[in-house]
Order: sequence, then structure tokens, then C-alpha cells
Amino acid sequence: MHGDDTLTPQEARLLHEMGRLVHALPRALEDDMNRTAGLTMTDFAVLLRLSEAPERRLRMAELAGLMGLTPSRITRVVDGLRSRDLVTKDRDPADFRGIVTTLTGAGLAAMEKAHPHHRASARRRILDHIPADELPLLYNTIRQINAVLAQDEATP
Amino acid sequence: MHGDDTLTPQEARLLHEMGRLVHALPRALEDDMNRTAGLTMTDFAVLLRLSEAPERRLRMAELAGLMGLTPSRITRVVDGLRSRDLVTKDRDPADFRGIVTTLTGAGLAAMEKAHPHHRASARRRILDHIPADELPLLYNTIRQINAVLAQDEATP
Repeated sequence: MHGDDTLTPQEARLLHEMGRLVHALPRALEDDMNRTAGLTMTDFAVLLRLSEAPERRLRMAELAGLMGLTPSRITRVVDGLRSRDLVTKDRDPADFRGIVTTLTGAGLAAMEKAHPHHRASARRRILDHIPADELPLLYNTIRQINAVLAQDEATP
Repeated sequence: MHGDDTLTPQEARLLHEMGRLVHALPRALEDDMNRTAGLTMTDFAVLLRLSEAPERRLRMAELAGLMGLTPSRITRVVDGLRSRDLVTKDRDPADFRGIVTTLTGAGLAAMEKAHPHHRASARRRILDHIPADELPLLYNTIRQINAVLAQDEATP
């Protein structure tokens, strides 16, 4: 590794702002979600995934995969939601060792109540600051960065 | 809050990719830093801040402010660096209640060894995927989002 791979001032400025963004943005969205709906962003994402699943139920292993969370982490999140009657947990009738999580009526209502607040939060925090003609460009750039990140993750 | 503030498909796609980015990017940079330099990104940022400070020393309160960390968190990070002889901690001669942290020679060497690896990591993970003519645009958009986030944080 040589020390001569320096950054241009423009590149350095961009990295600095990206560093601020990846720390401040999740915190702001989390605060908004907590204040408006009493949920964490992870809670909300689990409820949303379940609401989109057939019969509003998913195996724990599938849910963990969709969320990119470890089994122990998803178990903690689901147990928290269950203690508030937003989901149920049952043995999978099709696989005796598996556990399925099902969205309850209260869980669906909580998700549907939180969703418009979250959309408004995302609009105010992010979308309002992106000119419409820049959207496709920004999307393509971020998608490309994510694609390479995902590729690296898959080949350790 | 009305349920009719829906997102366009393009907006929804962008938010989805931004959500992936703010989670995957810090983790990837952290992994790179850990593997190449045996430091956390927070360790590295503290060493970098100290290396740029007059006499390579900062008051703990200043350092916490620069890093956006709580006093207890910055104390833990600095204590970890001190246990590896990368910084020292002393009473501030100018303020008997204050503590100053000073970068050691070993700390400077660790930062200088880590820096080019980190630049290469940032280039490979981020900059390589941004066409040069899009840099200013992306920078302005992210800076604008950050400015509003910072403003909100300052007015609770």
C-alpha cells in the first residue's frame, strides 16, 4: 500500500459528507419513527415485511434473511413485538423444528398507522432535497455502490 | 397525517437503496479498517483528529464534540487507545478539572499506516462508482440533506 493514493479535495469533501449522512440519517429516521409510532425502525420493517408476505406470516429464518439480521437478533425483535401483541409465534406446521411469525390485527394496524408518518419523515429528511431530475442518477449511483458491497459480502 | 402521501415507484426504489447503503457501507468500511489496521473506524477517526490538532492534543470535551460522541463513549474509546499506547491522558494544565488526550509517536505511526488503506477502501467502496461529472451534484445533495439533519438536531 503506497501513501500516494491521495484524494482530491472534492473527493475528500464528498466522503466527509457521506460519513455524516450514514450516521445522522438512520438516527433521524429512528427518532421520527419512535416519536410518531413508538416503534424502532427494525420493528417497523418487520411489521412491513410480514404485512407483504402471503397470509402475513414468515418463517423466522426467512425473516432474518430478508432483514439481514442474525437469528438471535431477529428472535429478540420478534419477542419484543409479541410482548405487545403485534405478532404471534408458532411452530411451523410444515416443519416441526421451524418457527413461524404471524402479523396480528393489532400489528397490521400499528404498521398502517406508522407508514404514512414514515413516508412523511423520509420525504422531509431525504426526498425534499433531491431535485426530480437528479433522482435517477442518484439511484443508479447508490445502487451500484450497494451491488459491489453485496458482492463483497457474498465472497468473504 | 393522511395516508395519501404515497411515494412514486422511483422514490420508493431510491429510499430502499439508501436504506441498504446507510447500513452496509459503515459495516464494510469498518471491516476494511479492522482487517488492514486492527482499528475501529472510531479509533481511526480519533487518531486522525488528534494528528490534526495543535501539538497533537485535544481536551476530551473538544474531542467528544468534534466526533459527535457522548462523554462516556469518548472516554471508553480513548481508554482503549491508551491501553495500546496510542494516546496518553493527562490533566489539563490550564484547567484542573479538564483532561487532555495526546497522540503518541506510536499513535501517529498507527494512523499514518492506516490512512492509505482507508483511502483505498473508500475509493474501492464509493468513489470508483461515481462518475467524475456527478461528484459535485452528489456532494451538493448530500450536503443539503446533512444541513437539514444538523439543523433539526440543534432545535429539539
